[in-house]
Amino acid sequence: MSVNADLQKERAAATLDSEDFARWWAGGAFHLEERRALERRFYDDPDFAEAVHPSCLSYKERYEQTVARSTRFLAKLRQWQREKQPQLQLDVSTLRDFRLLLSGSLGTGLFQQSFPLRVHFSMFMTTLLGQGTEEQQAQWLNRSWHMDGVLGTYAQTELGHGTFVRGLETRADYDAERQEFILNTPTQSSYKWWPGGLGNTANVAIVLAQLYVRGKHYGLQSFLVRIRDERTHEPLPGVDVGDIGPRLGGNGVNNGFLGLHDVRIPRNQMLMKNAQVLADGTFVQGRPPLLLYGTMVYVRVITLKDVLFGLLQAATIATRYSVVRRQSRIDGDRPEVSVLDHTTQQAKILPQIARGVCYRLVSDWLWRFYEQVLQQLEGGGQGSATGARGNSLPELHALSCCLKAVATDEATEGVELLRKSCGGHGFLSSANFDSIHGLTAAAYTYEGEYTVLLLQTARFLVRQYVDSLKRKVLPASVSYLRDTARLVWGKDLTANCVRALEISALEQVRQAWQSQNGHKSKKVSAEMASNLAGRQLTSAAIAHAHAFFTRNALEELASLRRKGDLSQNVSHVVGQLVELFVIDTFLRQAGCVLRWNSGINGTQLRFVERRYEELLARLRPNAVALVDGFDFHDRVLGSTLGCHDGRVYERLMEEARRNPVNQEPVNASFHSHLLPMMRGKL
Amino acid sequence: MSVNADLQKERAAATLDSEDFARWWAGGAFHLEERRALERRFYDDPDFAEAVHPSCLSYKERYEQTVARSTRFLAKLRQWQREKQPQLQLDVSTLRDFRLLLSGSLGTGLFQQSFPLRVHFSMFMTTLLGQGTEEQQAQWLNRSWHMDGVLGTYAQTELGHGTFVRGLETRADYDAERQEFILNTPTQSSYKWWPGGLGNTANVAIVLAQLYVRGKHYGLQSFLVRIRDERTHEPLPGVDVGDIGPRLGGNGVNNGFLGLHDVRIPRNQMLMKNAQVLADGTFVQGRPPLLLYGTMVYVRVITLKDVLFGLLQAATIATRYSVVRRQSRIDGDRPEVSVLDHTTQQAKILPQIARGVCYRLVSDWLWRFYEQVLQQLEGGGQGSATGARGNSLPELHALSCCLKAVATDEATEGVELLRKSCGGHGFLSSANFDSIHGLTAAAYTYEGEYTVLLLQTARFLVRQYVDSLKRKVLPASVSYLRDTARLVWGKDLTANCVRALEISALEQVRQAWQSQNGHKSKKVSAEMASNLAGRQLTSAAIAHAHAFFTRNALEELASLRRKGDLSQNVSHVVGQLVELFVIDTFLRQAGCVLRWNSGINGTQLRFVERRYEELLARLRPNAVALVDGFDFHDRVLGSTLGCHDGRVYERLMEEARRNPVNQEPVNASFHSHLLPMMRGKL
Repeated sequence: MSVNADLQKERAAATLDSEDFARWWAGGAFHLEERRALERRFYDDPDFAEAVHPSCLSYKERYEQTVARSTRFLAKLRQWQREKQPQLQLDVSTLRDFRLLLSGSLGTGLFQQSFPLRVHFSMFMTTLLGQGTEEQQAQWLNRSWHMDGVLGTYAQTELGHGTFVRGLETRADYDAERQEFILNTPTQSSYKWWPGGLGNTANVAIVLAQLYVRGKHYGLQSFLVRIRDERTHEPLPGVDVGDIGPRLGGNGVNNGFLGLHDVRIPRNQMLMKNAQVLADGTFVQGRPPLLLYGTMVYVRVITLKDVLFGLLQAATIATRYSVVRRQSRIDGDRPEVSVLDHTTQQAKILPQIARGVCYRLVSDWLWRFYEQVLQQLEGGGQGSATGARGNSLPELHALSCCLKAVATDEATEGVELLRKSCGGHGFLSSANFDSIHGLTAAAYTYEGEYTVLLLQTARFLVRQYVDSLKRKVLPASVSYLRDTARLVWGKDLTANCVRALEISALEQVRQAWQSQNGHKSKKVSAEMASNLAGRQLTSAAIAHAHAFFTRNALEELASLRRKGDLSQNVSHVVGQLVELFVIDTFLRQAGCVLRWNSGINGTQLRFVERRYEELLARLRPNAVALVDGFDFHDRVLGSTLGCHDGRVYERLMEEARRNPVNQEPVNASFHSHLLPMMRGKL
Repeated sequence: MSVNADLQKERAAATLDSEDFARWWAGGAFHLEERRALERRFYDDPDFAEAVHPSCLSYKERYEQTVARSTRFLAKLRQWQREKQPQLQLDVSTLRDFRLLLSGSLGTGLFQQSFPLRVHFSMFMTTLLGQGTEEQQAQWLNRSWHMDGVLGTYAQTELGHGTFVRGLETRADYDAERQEFILNTPTQSSYKWWPGGLGNTANVAIVLAQLYVRGKHYGLQSFLVRIRDERTHEPLPGVDVGDIGPRLGGNGVNNGFLGLHDVRIPRNQMLMKNAQVLADGTFVQGRPPLLLYGTMVYVRVITLKDVLFGLLQAATIATRYSVVRRQSRIDGDRPEVSVLDHTTQQAKILPQIARGVCYRLVSDWLWRFYEQVLQQLEGGGQGSATGARGNSLPELHALSCCLKAVATDEATEGVELLRKSCGGHGFLSSANFDSIHGLTAAAYTYEGEYTVLLLQTARFLVRQYVDSLKRKVLPASVSYLRDTARLVWGKDLTANCVRALEISALEQVRQAWQSQNGHKSKKVSAEMASNLAGRQLTSAAIAHAHAFFTRNALEELASLRRKGDLSQNVSHVVGQLVELFVIDTFLRQAGCVLRWNSGINGTQLRFVERRYEELLARLRPNAVALVDGFDFHDRVLGSTLGCHDGRVYERLMEEARRNPVNQEPVNASFHSHLLPMMRGKL
């Protein structure tokens, strides 16, 4: 198959070596080649070909095809793993590696809308490992790894309860006589709702429930509950289970609901690593679940990687399509130009690429910071976890909250903008923006709702600001809260931008604090004062995220260059991208920046804008080489518009032609409805 | 069925009389009652009950069900019309009224994703009326109205050509010997692509094609082409037709593709009101299609109404759900509060309501202006259409472009924000945000792509600005371009905001003009200079839209009050909404506003923000009464979260339970795939 001529021209003229970039992006030549080999193995396998685009299937058909494909996938993946590493040890890192294969590019290429068994390896097994005792692990872990009679899910969220976890209503009452727990969802709003794979797939659920012993409440605990018969898959007595229905995205997940009515489980199916109920009903509180907290942070760090993945998938599709698509003449009677030659189109696409790359730099840093804090916690034991000075957990928590929130929001917006930049064709499901958007948008809510996360960050920021007034030492990421110097506009443009963003963040934290105090002085409770200052608090957290993203991206770039991790041509282009990201953030935040940096004048702003346009012009010739360098396999993009060969119109037609609705020249509804209507003469 | 207690409380405590509001909103008591009666007639009819949520159906099933439902709908609607008006005259206004029934709230309630036969009454019949000669109308119009053998569509856009209409490739060659046109889509990119109903439904298409007579090109003309046999519905020889596949929204439309290969039609099937090809091939150019231009404007005015409809559907759902949903405690150990009690939630929802109401005020004005201009054109004949002074068509065109573009963009963003404000449940298809978003988002591209429309407006603005330098009289909507006075911050807050927005728009128009000139001075063509100034030009057009929206909303409010159209309690609340809209626009545009109004200081901004928060607090108690006043029938909202009775959790469960995937306790894929995998021990 030939490659579109315009794309070929772009590739030939680029100064960026996309293979060079790809090696860096993949974390080195070895990882790049390993992934490519794995992709070839699976994507060339006819077992994973797709006869019909999933968007044409009914919800039920989609479920059935996803189950069929995913069992084949898991078996073949395990086979590959055994070939590679015959003596595999089952532990946290093995599980993590396996999970990354399921959720990363390999899994995405096969399951654009995810699949029901992923939660078994992510939440279910991770919780077993983290909260199960040694005996419990001996009983369950190996069977789970081999899916030997165990198809797990993790059931926390309820129909009426999400963010406010303490409000969960599902309860587990201990019956000391029979040494059993009795699980109940006593109201409609207490039905479990959302767990992946729960609908029709899982046969065991880890259920979060309020523990009661002899009527006394002992807080939330986790219980292993078999919900379907291992052999027949029939729901067990007292179990009311099903799928919650179609959604904006992730329609392969089989999210489910679960009602429990007097479902009894043996005592040893409460996960008891952290707290125990003895046979006689005595409750023993163990070490508080520090690592649970760590898990929440972990998921947010991973989410940052997930959303930048989606953003760059979308950017790749939009970039290639914008070269292939020609529209409107610029000069006289010459042919219509590539859409990417319109500066307005460049301004839509290139900043998204810059954003994705910078999120990657920051997420790499955040990942290292996370591992440091984990070591701190594991080394220091319980003492270091309670927020004592020198412990970085609160800082990590606050950062992971606001970076996840802001990145998810902006990535989702970016995916939408990129879709819109592809005009009508971007609207088609075969372009795949809808699926990418669905998964990215989901992250806005799951694992910490956007506004809730911002408010958590803001609480931390206000606390640090108050500490700064008391001349305490501040953690590095918020040290700018102490520095009240005004902006001095120097020669380094990016430094000016970052400093202006920091000052804006500082002033907004101050304003939020003052607003809270103002409300408190009117005799409302501290909580109500926080509520009333909600707009200021969330704005402050967003401003902090912007300040951090820009400074950290610059620092990471400098560090990569120092370490010599970037070849010269890659370093050059990544440098332009980081600069574009910093300037773009500055300009997008102009409202706050100008308000809180009244010294910035029109000449300075014009200078920033000119540099912005200059960067667009300089990056333009490398746009295709750049997105080639992300090295998304065509299957991972899953898009008629974004394929490497640029055969856009051919693929659009092919995809349309294989739609089942086009398989018969005349649809049955013509004879049953249209013809009678025409004969009846409306 | 009982109504949710929290909703009841809200309704009891409101100061706004929602029936009062509803009467105004519907355009008077008569219209309100007529619509309600019509809705009862159709929504209570068991013929229009839906056994399965459309999102659970396959694409083909959805098509078939939509056809079945829509034929029933059209027949019953025609029946109702005959009862109401036995002596109906078929003309432009009859057609318009009928179309509004199909696309307005009645049609939306029955077809959330639209239906294939709508285009027959909108584009197909309208074009017949506007471009057909009297003989052609005699031959086709009555049959079309009764769908007597005619199911029409309108085929303009091609796979490779949208915005740049001159670039269309489909051609019609006149064969004088046989007095026929020969139609061809000579390339893949010239396939027609997108027309509604084209896929499997329509049997006649109005095809736009380049006319050639003896090899000479005569521009684009419209041709009536039968594409499917009237009796068998088989595609006719040379016709390659099908559905283009699933999309982000509007999946009931049956958008199609069409290839034509030497398809012959008689000479009298070129629509010849404006230009003729005589039997011998002589081409006669008639009056230029002024009203065509009017049609484009008309569609944009209507689009403004459509997107505000979607925005307010979404706002209604989010408001009711935010009262029913309780989450997080504010004060101590008291129960979790309604989400709407969080100020951050109020800031998400109330400004969207304000925006929708103000868009409505502006669209009413725009509609009147459109009718005025139409009269001007019809009265003045051809002379007044060529842009002579005193003709308002260019002004109307520029306004309709930028208002459609900006309103669509902001409404789409608003729908997304409202969805996100409903957390996880907003993500479910049964909440219906996805469908509303799909239809709103489509308007970003169709009937004038966003950026293209902004650039058209900007060209007008720059022209007017240059005129102002020459001291010419400017049209009313841009008269502020002459007024170079700086902002004087007075007592009237909204006046300050509007003036600041106008100055910002003026300065951005000036900057765009300077930027164009700067590029031109570097010896690039005028077109390339415009391309290079693309960012400044689009920003200027957006700024103009904001200035116009805010000023016009204030003026419309004043005029309604003067005329006594608003009862006192409605006037009070609408006044708060307009003020909120103006301030919200000002604050959202703070970046531009502060850049171009350097005199605004921190105290003034704090004052604006305080007023913003005050308005949120004042509107909060009337939020439910307000959305009740939009009077969306539950069927029109189509949402488990937004129903009038607030039985959110019940409906979520009911909707989940009727999903076909939940009809069998054990899905077949368990035996075929999951069980074998478990037995094989992965």
